[in-house]
Amino acid sequence: MPCIFCQVVSKSIDSPIVYEDEHTLAFLDHRPLFPGHCLLIPKAHYETLSDLPPALIEPLFSAAQRLARAVETAMRADGSFVAINNRVSQSVPHLHVHIVPRRKKDGLRGFFWPRNRYESQDAAIAAQQAIVNALQRA
Amino acid sequence: MPCIFCQVVSKSIDSPIVYEDEHTLAFLDHRPLFPGHCLLIPKAHYETLSDLPPALIEPLFSAAQRLARAVETAMRADGSFVAINNRVSQSVPHLHVHIVPRRKKDGLRGFFWPRNRYESQDAAIAAQQAIVNALQRA
Repeated sequence: MPCIFCQVVSKSIDSPIVYEDEHTLAFLDHRPLFPGHCLLIPKAHYETLSDLPPALIEPLFSAAQRLARAVETAMRADGSFVAINNRVSQSVPHLHVHIVPRRKKDGLRGFFWPRNRYESQDAAIAAQQAIVNALQRA
Repeated sequence: MPCIFCQVVSKSIDSPIVYEDEHTLAFLDHRPLFPGHCLLIPKAHYETLSDLPPALIEPLFSAAQRLARAVETAMRADGSFVAINNRVSQSVPHLHVHIVPRRKKDGLRGFFWPRNRYESQDAAIAAQQAIVNALQRA
């Protein structure tokens, strides 16, 4: 099965495109959180943010910035939500940046989920050290 | 009141820092969605993604990519969630990228919210056109 977002790029699937440049393409999500919810993708197939080559970081996120501004303006929103699901909760395994208009009291409270404190300071230090170590090994 | 994240940058507030370079800093969120949840910020004070100068796009999102990989590895996660709240649901008005480890069946279903279809094709076309127009005016 060819990737559905690659088919959007090749125009073999018709999609409501809002933005296109050399490296990226953006279109309306067909099941929006709110109207104006866009998906921005690199035209080349990479599965997650981790897989994106360094040369495409700037093109993708400059486009994300432009699009966030445009979505806020176009939808007369109070703000926006810009998000990437890597592997878990990722419906299509082709990297995509969600750009969603937000309004005060739009029904999505806080960060949508319960947030907790670390059980102990040791638990926080262990997480910190594990991440520092992973960065050093990378 | 000085910005709390600017105080983290100046080290006048002690925070569990996991990453630092010339332009960016990352530390553990003290109220994590899951252990290992990090916040990545530009050291200079910009309120939202829209406000970030072009020269800082690549430094910020290259660091986000490195950190997403490290958080996934360090926390033995199945994936990650990388997200920015601009103005709405933004607790501290200093741009920050949430980098959150995710696991299958971690209790955060789908995209966490109900998602809808556009009421009509006209409604979708109107949203598409409004965004295209906003991009052209920007």
